[in-house]
Amino acid sequence: MIIVKIGGSVFSDKKGQPENFDEETVRRIAKEIAGFYPDEDFIVVHGGGSFGHPYAKEYGIREGLPEEWEAANRRRIGFTLTHQAMLRANERFIEVFVREGLPAFSVSTSSVFITENGDVAYGDVEVIERLLELKFIPMLFGDVSIDLAKGIEILSGDQIITYLTKMLEPNKVVFLMDVDGIYDGRPGEGSLVQNLTRDEIDGLLERLNCLAAGTDVTGGICNKLAEAKKIAEHSEVWFVNGKVPGRLSGAIRGDGFGTRITG
Amino acid sequence: MIIVKIGGSVFSDKKGQPENFDEETVRRIAKEIAGFYPDEDFIVVHGGGSFGHPYAKEYGIREGLPEEWEAANRRRIGFTLTHQAMLRANERFIEVFVREGLPAFSVSTSSVFITENGDVAYGDVEVIERLLELKFIPMLFGDVSIDLAKGIEILSGDQIITYLTKMLEPNKVVFLMDVDGIYDGRPGEGSLVQNLTRDEIDGLLERLNCLAAGTDVTGGICNKLAEAKKIAEHSEVWFVNGKVPGRLSGAIRGDGFGTRITG
Repeated sequence: MIIVKIGGSVFSDKKGQPENFDEETVRRIAKEIAGFYPDEDFIVVHGGGSFGHPYAKEYGIREGLPEEWEAANRRRIGFTLTHQAMLRANERFIEVFVREGLPAFSVSTSSVFITENGDVAYGDVEVIERLLELKFIPMLFGDVSIDLAKGIEILSGDQIITYLTKMLEPNKVVFLMDVDGIYDGRPGEGSLVQNLTRDEIDGLLERLNCLAAGTDVTGGICNKLAEAKKIAEHSEVWFVNGKVPGRLSGAIRGDGFGTRITG
Repeated sequence: MIIVKIGGSVFSDKKGQPENFDEETVRRIAKEIAGFYPDEDFIVVHGGGSFGHPYAKEYGIREGLPEEWEAANRRRIGFTLTHQAMLRANERFIEVFVREGLPAFSVSTSSVFITENGDVAYGDVEVIERLLELKFIPMLFGDVSIDLAKGIEILSGDQIITYLTKMLEPNKVVFLMDVDGIYDGRPGEGSLVQNLTRDEIDGLLERLNCLAAGTDVTGGICNKLAEAKKIAEHSEVWFVNGKVPGRLSGAIRGDGFGTRITG
């Protein structure tokens, strides 16, 4: 089983029109997956792009649920609007996958996972496992979450994958990004890291100055690397460019161009 | 806590245009709920109406997953299309409730419940319980389900409610229908049963000829009564006309017009 993460920046321009969706890129990704399915099983997880983020930010979801009733109710409404925006993104993905003959099935992240300060505290993977057995392609997404500490939170697609990897032990996890992989420095400046072992991640995190807090609600490359370190305990991890045809297929076959992290 | 079931026939005309939605009726129902929230907690479950049923029927979802690959894959696609249609209905409900200031939150039934021959075999109510604690209004819907016996199935809103009642022990369950309640005979012919005890249900089932199989994929009044019998073990049950203003409020207060079933 292979888990494919489709990063927000691959299918949507966060700085563009609200809820813009790069259907052509998603169709090409679906076609690449169709080249391996049903011999290989897949779980797909996508990010928020221009769908969930604007609501999450406007309503301050990451700040949790306040005490005062009116403020709390406004945030509850924001929580539900963020989820609905993510469902609209998810609907677009399902439509494209179905058109390619792939039985992708929407699983609502917030119906299944509970977080504690943003980390998955609990997640029932029973439905996901049975969907896989029946040869569906479960499709999850970054979403809002009920949080044991803060009341409400945002749960990123990357963190879902960390949890799923621990529970389901995939053969491979492929992260699709809008750059060629992990760079030792800024993309375009530092050089692409093509092979990385789990033990080398800490050094890279340090060189990338990952101790400073990010601004992206779901974290940028530092969070990705930190999650990748946890994932690599259980599975091979690839970071490849989702905008370039063939890169996903290369990662699935194992001879692709990008960053490969081994345990 | 009160569970409100909004039957498909209350918000949608199954014989009308595909995906027709009676927004005015739903807005009035939301307003009635808003008259009691937040003093009272609510779970809302809605049916399929003209949204889910056409897909469920076209793709033969209730027949389960066949052996042959092409036939199975067509049915997998139908399974996912049925769910997406139900999400579209659900989105309409969420929009209307949010506009009335109610923090309704979509919980995907098929992400949470697994059936065995159509009965709930397993359901994780953790997220629903925590949503209630945080004063959200969890909103579920009749949906497709993974089925332990048949692979795939349809899970009706009524059956979800039976399960939720067992797990969460609400004070009251109110079924909104397009008739005034349960009739001793055909609606319009027999007389309305205003009070019924749990023990009297078997006799009524017999008089209504409920041993003959129905044609509605989620069952008609016979299924409703059979579920009501199970529900009445744990909670007071009301059947009232959701099309008539004030009937829901009457059932919530306890002095309404319709059928009241006590344990």
